[in-house]
Amino acid sequence: MSKGFVEKITSRHEDFAQWYTDIVTKAELIDYSSVRGSMIIRPYGYAIWDNIKNELDKRIKETGHENVYMPLFIPESLLNKEKDHIEGFAPEVAWVTHGGDEELTERLVVRPTSEVLFGEHYKNIIHSYRDLPKLYNQWANVVRWEKTTRPFLRTLEFLWQEGHTCHETKDEADEEAIKMLKVYAEICEEYLAIPVIKGQKTDKEKFAGAEYTYTIESLMHDGKALQSGTSHYLGDGFAKAFDIQFTDREGSLQYVHQTSWGFTTRIIGAMIMVHGDDRGLVVPPRLAPTQVMIVPIAQHKEGVLDFAYSLKKQLSDVVRVDIDASDKKPGWKFNEYEMKGIPIRLEVGPRDIEQEQVVLVRRDTGDKITVSLINLERQIQSLLDEIQKKLFERARQHREEHTEMVLDFASLKEFFESKTGFVKAMWCGERACEDKVKEETGATSRCMPFEQEAISDTCVCCGKEASSLVYWAKAY
Amino acid sequence: MSKGFVEKITSRHEDFAQWYTDIVTKAELIDYSSVRGSMIIRPYGYAIWDNIKNELDKRIKETGHENVYMPLFIPESLLNKEKDHIEGFAPEVAWVTHGGDEELTERLVVRPTSEVLFGEHYKNIIHSYRDLPKLYNQWANVVRWEKTTRPFLRTLEFLWQEGHTCHETKDEADEEAIKMLKVYAEICEEYLAIPVIKGQKTDKEKFAGAEYTYTIESLMHDGKALQSGTSHYLGDGFAKAFDIQFTDREGSLQYVHQTSWGFTTRIIGAMIMVHGDDRGLVVPPRLAPTQVMIVPIAQHKEGVLDFAYSLKKQLSDVVRVDIDASDKKPGWKFNEYEMKGIPIRLEVGPRDIEQEQVVLVRRDTGDKITVSLINLERQIQSLLDEIQKKLFERARQHREEHTEMVLDFASLKEFFESKTGFVKAMWCGERACEDKVKEETGATSRCMPFEQEAISDTCVCCGKEASSLVYWAKAY
Repeated sequence: MSKGFVEKITSRHEDFAQWYTDIVTKAELIDYSSVRGSMIIRPYGYAIWDNIKNELDKRIKETGHENVYMPLFIPESLLNKEKDHIEGFAPEVAWVTHGGDEELTERLVVRPTSEVLFGEHYKNIIHSYRDLPKLYNQWANVVRWEKTTRPFLRTLEFLWQEGHTCHETKDEADEEAIKMLKVYAEICEEYLAIPVIKGQKTDKEKFAGAEYTYTIESLMHDGKALQSGTSHYLGDGFAKAFDIQFTDREGSLQYVHQTSWGFTTRIIGAMIMVHGDDRGLVVPPRLAPTQVMIVPIAQHKEGVLDFAYSLKKQLSDVVRVDIDASDKKPGWKFNEYEMKGIPIRLEVGPRDIEQEQVVLVRRDTGDKITVSLINLERQIQSLLDEIQKKLFERARQHREEHTEMVLDFASLKEFFESKTGFVKAMWCGERACEDKVKEETGATSRCMPFEQEAISDTCVCCGKEASSLVYWAKAY
Repeated sequence: MSKGFVEKITSRHEDFAQWYTDIVTKAELIDYSSVRGSMIIRPYGYAIWDNIKNELDKRIKETGHENVYMPLFIPESLLNKEKDHIEGFAPEVAWVTHGGDEELTERLVVRPTSEVLFGEHYKNIIHSYRDLPKLYNQWANVVRWEKTTRPFLRTLEFLWQEGHTCHETKDEADEEAIKMLKVYAEICEEYLAIPVIKGQKTDKEKFAGAEYTYTIESLMHDGKALQSGTSHYLGDGFAKAFDIQFTDREGSLQYVHQTSWGFTTRIIGAMIMVHGDDRGLVVPPRLAPTQVMIVPIAQHKEGVLDFAYSLKKQLSDVVRVDIDASDKKPGWKFNEYEMKGIPIRLEVGPRDIEQEQVVLVRRDTGDKITVSLINLERQIQSLLDEIQKKLFERARQHREEHTEMVLDFASLKEFFESKTGFVKAMWCGERACEDKVKEETGATSRCMPFEQEAISDTCVCCGKEASSLVYWAKAY
């Protein structure tokens, strides 16, 4: 912090990837370490994650779930129990082979996800329909051995919550999977101001071991999509692999129906890429660890600092407010808090005090508003609400402007050669067409949206009968 | 839960170890898994940890610390940088040697603690005295390759917080180390009702890489001691190994002075062994996820359930209250909530409703009190306070009764042959005497208490001049 923020960051239109890297380091969200592909989450980054975590945890508990904690390590034989699951995850796990000086008789995987651990536990504790549903969640770190990594978006280790539930029936499990996807969508839209498309993944893109996967997809400022949260209906595949049976209401043995769902630190990457601009991060007010930063002007003059501190005290009942009374120049402070994306800067100097007013500067628009001290709390609260709404609206509009309907393959190819964004196009349901689209355009199927429209009768790729509308995009 | 709690647990006087194992499983704190030495923390166990975590996190933030998150893995070369540290930890770390199918060019350690990661980061972000102090904390899982494990007390993986701070001067760092030890002592005494002895570890028992270690030690019901939290003054050893230098107020380069301090899920083991009894767990009211459990009596009779639910609603503003309206017999419910150590059971049946009263049953004493509905909230709150105080007082008294002063080696040996508890005895400061005590009695030096008394002039072991009073005990 002592170095100030005089250096400019790369423009996001010039080099979006470099702009992103500049922001995550200069807004002090992360630092690199000598651990390849891992990141240090710094106090400001962690405060943002903590807020997301608390907000989501509240909603997870309100929907009846309980938190538990499972081991970090998974014995190889346990991971091998569900065939599709191990096939999907084996290439990207870290292996522990030695404890102290001794070679282990069985290798351990550092958890990439915990379905199998929950499976083993559920077998122990579920016996009757009276034990159902079991609605568990855990907050944990997981590891996936990625080759190419980027802070928040794709890291060797990341933080997340993973929900794992067991139900009597398929319908109940499916309802749960959709319910939790909606909770994720709410967090994104209401809290992070990120508009999302809710839908279902194709078989090609579903979770390894799931019968089907629901997803929320969001669009970044550069027109690439980001999978922002997924919820899986696991069917009874894990139940059979782990023998999780219960005596049903009629007295016969049944396998449970399961779900799992996860939301990760990746969403911080989405927040950066949806709202940020060339002056740095823009944090939505509801999420912001500091909503209002007070910067005293001419603070050496008598009464200014006292007044600024009394304002902080007064405002702290209603908003998360801080003050920077350091001896840095105001211009430096302005740059620093713009880089950090604090929603409102409050400037107060001798003349303001005389005239019983302060100046509020919006991070999202740069607008300066002079407001009277009367009803300051209420004015700030309503301004924060307005900024929150505006950020969501701006992102929604950006997505609309970068979403096109396409009817034939030539147009599809042309779109991804000349533009970025979502393409809505019909699909026949065949893996071959998905593969061809990927190969020739670089885009993947993001989801079959819950809100289906029949924009044509034929598949955009092969021209055969279409079975559903699909959102296509290049993706992170 | 569906199985009820009819089976008795082992008496703690008969077999303390088995009693402990019975409690952790039957109170549904943990489950075992196929991961050797690791535990599944179940919802009730996790709710207890979450309360401890929230209470401690609040105090960590109030004392000016910020949370961060460091990587799980440590490259071997990084761990090797501080000689004493690696010597202490190398025998008990888990090694990651493969990522996916590839053998790594450098092995990674699963963090047993994070001094070296903080060291590397601090070198990057500290340049001037203006950057100091740096007061960081992280909540994380860590792994130590223990041979013999027991739930909470010693597990391959455990959850904890680890504080890591940098300061301009030795005095400031030492003050920090003591301040955080006091925070731990407060959490133990005020929140967990566990009395502790604050003191300093001998060189033999200090943390690998520390100049000295402060500790809080508590006494379990079986008379064995448990190290309940430690705080280390690291000196400038890590600073030199990681080259963490700053320009001081006079403009010259200096190494920072560091501390680290940790508090773990182990404390749940202490809570069990200090307060539990032959009917199960006893959770101190301030910590208890559920403070009052309402058990309706003759709940099939008209009005009973409605009344019980309205009581729950009424009480939920002031205490953490739950109701068991399941169709299990009241006696089964009594057993279950006694096993889980819920501080107060509230019984309410038709006659109580008629007479505008309820029955409160204390978990700690078994006392039944009939109380009027008038001022029920306040009566319950004051009863919870009384239970909290009583538990602490009972544990303190138990410790007093199991603490003896000893002046000579014969008496020391006799104590540990016939009794359990703390021995207060003088020590010359030589490692040889500590080793001899350990060898001949099984007891270790727990700490040199801050409150020193000169009970004799000579070492209890060698008879040479004594340098300090030491608490000795057999320990977990």
